[in-house]
Amino acid sequence: MNKVNEHIYLDNAATTRLDEDVLQAMMPYLTSHYGNPSSIHHLGRETRIAVEEARKKIASLLSVKPNSLLFTSGGTESNNMAIRTALKDFGCDHIITSKIEHHAVLHTVEYYEAELGIGVSYVKLYEDGSIDQNSFRRLLEMKSAQGKKCLVSLMHANNETGQFTEIRWISSLCKKYGAIFHSDCVQTIGHYPLNLSSEGMHMASASAHKFHGPKGVGFLYVHEDLHPSPLIYGGGQERGYRAGTENVAGIVGMAEALHLSYKNYAADQQHIAGLKQYMATFLKTHFPDCSINTGRFSLYSLLSVAFPKNEATEMLLMELDQKGICASGGSACSGGGSHVMKELGRTDQYVTIRFSLSKYNTKEEVDQTIETLQQILLQEKNLLKTN
Amino acid sequence: MNKVNEHIYLDNAATTRLDEDVLQAMMPYLTSHYGNPSSIHHLGRETRIAVEEARKKIASLLSVKPNSLLFTSGGTESNNMAIRTALKDFGCDHIITSKIEHHAVLHTVEYYEAELGIGVSYVKLYEDGSIDQNSFRRLLEMKSAQGKKCLVSLMHANNETGQFTEIRWISSLCKKYGAIFHSDCVQTIGHYPLNLSSEGMHMASASAHKFHGPKGVGFLYVHEDLHPSPLIYGGGQERGYRAGTENVAGIVGMAEALHLSYKNYAADQQHIAGLKQYMATFLKTHFPDCSINTGRFSLYSLLSVAFPKNEATEMLLMELDQKGICASGGSACSGGGSHVMKELGRTDQYVTIRFSLSKYNTKEEVDQTIETLQQILLQEKNLLKTN
Repeated sequence: MNKVNEHIYLDNAATTRLDEDVLQAMMPYLTSHYGNPSSIHHLGRETRIAVEEARKKIASLLSVKPNSLLFTSGGTESNNMAIRTALKDFGCDHIITSKIEHHAVLHTVEYYEAELGIGVSYVKLYEDGSIDQNSFRRLLEMKSAQGKKCLVSLMHANNETGQFTEIRWISSLCKKYGAIFHSDCVQTIGHYPLNLSSEGMHMASASAHKFHGPKGVGFLYVHEDLHPSPLIYGGGQERGYRAGTENVAGIVGMAEALHLSYKNYAADQQHIAGLKQYMATFLKTHFPDCSINTGRFSLYSLLSVAFPKNEATEMLLMELDQKGICASGGSACSGGGSHVMKELGRTDQYVTIRFSLSKYNTKEEVDQTIETLQQILLQEKNLLKTN
Repeated sequence: MNKVNEHIYLDNAATTRLDEDVLQAMMPYLTSHYGNPSSIHHLGRETRIAVEEARKKIASLLSVKPNSLLFTSGGTESNNMAIRTALKDFGCDHIITSKIEHHAVLHTVEYYEAELGIGVSYVKLYEDGSIDQNSFRRLLEMKSAQGKKCLVSLMHANNETGQFTEIRWISSLCKKYGAIFHSDCVQTIGHYPLNLSSEGMHMASASAHKFHGPKGVGFLYVHEDLHPSPLIYGGGQERGYRAGTENVAGIVGMAEALHLSYKNYAADQQHIAGLKQYMATFLKTHFPDCSINTGRFSLYSLLSVAFPKNEATEMLLMELDQKGICASGGSACSGGGSHVMKELGRTDQYVTIRFSLSKYNTKEEVDQTIETLQQILLQEKNLLKTN
């Protein structure tokens, strides 16, 4: 139950509440176990072991080698590092990505385009945000025929629409054309029992706070045959690939959060997907004007709803907030204005609300949210009629 | 008192124990206050306020503007960002630094030297690690006369010798010659009531875990007239200068740790400096062969001791560790082998042990350390005599 909250939190794609068990796992490293993992005395060895045990635990869950995981300060740093090393070390001289990637990918790509003159191609998207596969295949084929080595960076699931990318299909195509495939998996790692070896990407980014772990820590998976160079130079931490004293408590917490997500996946997924379905059905019944952006092949936790734009809906998010309900208009990092919805042509006629659910949400919270939506929208409707 | 420890921790230059009051300040942000500071709802605004309050608190302590502080994942990232932006944005095309900087500076400098062909000059050092001021002045003068715009990166206090750099003097010289001055202040911010405005550097790096704050968080001070570009691209966090969801608990903890360090400076400094003096006197009395590397103009918390190299002293660090005493041979990040002591010509004839103290250390711990040193060295001496 949601005992610490007096509000209804439906913005779990932005960040999640730290799991109490995760905090418990972190506590020794916030109190007695404070050694620097690079110190050779016993207090240092103790935290070195904790960091390496966390790495092994995460590697085992994802079915990858421990030495393919590099701990970072979060998903954004991981994405930056992946793109940089692909261009610097893996021979890539062209980038294929999409206009609805997270800014951590898009702005990094734009930087290398502006600074180094790296060519960038954007894949064609359908209105739901899914990739036009034929167009992607032709693009990759063409660039490869031109002698380009491509970095393909496509997120596993979009943080605003929830739409999935067929990463296995993309992996196999990248393999065929000798491209490097990086996937921003910030919305899926910790939410699905992924086996990264079978997904087949070369690099994948993850962020702990998206799956009930702490903020300020994440990792980059880099296939063990590839040798990245650091984004951050200095000491020999992370086998020389990422310098800086390790965020030990954060790393231990991330491993525990990932462990819990795999352990409880079946029950959590069923619970959350059930709430989403329940909410979607309710919305369609009570608000026939609204449409659900989230298609079938999407995150079980995310419900993106388009309300026709009018005076009543334009203030909806703020009015929900005033009644204690936390939802969002898009990515938190975009600070409100959504480049994704704009790209998908959804900003002129629609107001989009993203409800993103977690294991801590309840049916009662969904009921209360629907009820509040009804109050706000009906009240506004009546007000509009009266004027 | 040191109630959580069964050991004697004398490696506080590597990392420090998290202050219990700091942990208490962090706890709300590890439990109920989990919003993403970029979210516009009340849970997001709550953490946004916490981050900005922390920034104001730190700025006020350091006597700088809040917008001159950029939160990072630690000292290493801060050093990387400072050097990169000086070359990329502030027009610097030559670097003046020293061979005894931390690897976070040295390896970053080496990267830009190798990758971009940036020229690097190393200042001449005296045996105690202090800078030959005349040589530095001539170097800066010469490079400036050659039309170079210099980045000067010199640490405030060395993490192995404890030796201070005259940063005010360097600041004024840099000003005279139009150079940019960055100082790695990881060993001094949080240990001295610094006023960065009067110190006069353009950029300064700090790391929370060096002053009883959490690992995985730090900041870069950049004078408000300068506009750095990000090392990590993405969302608009940190006014666009450093992307990635903020480590809210870490940032709040860092601000509290800095606050406590200023508040208790007089008493803590007196206590620690007293212990250092007591230990130094004791060592010189009981081990006449050893010499103290740490000069007068050095960190009050650090005692670097050179023992003549022999069979007895070569295993000293390990033997101390076996008896529960944590000290170090040099920087933790160097993993044992010290580039600093090598540069200063101290590795052939001496075994260097760095004892670094904190407010949690006691006179009893120092007594016990001396006693243990006597046991080890006398026992070994007798053993050597017998053989």
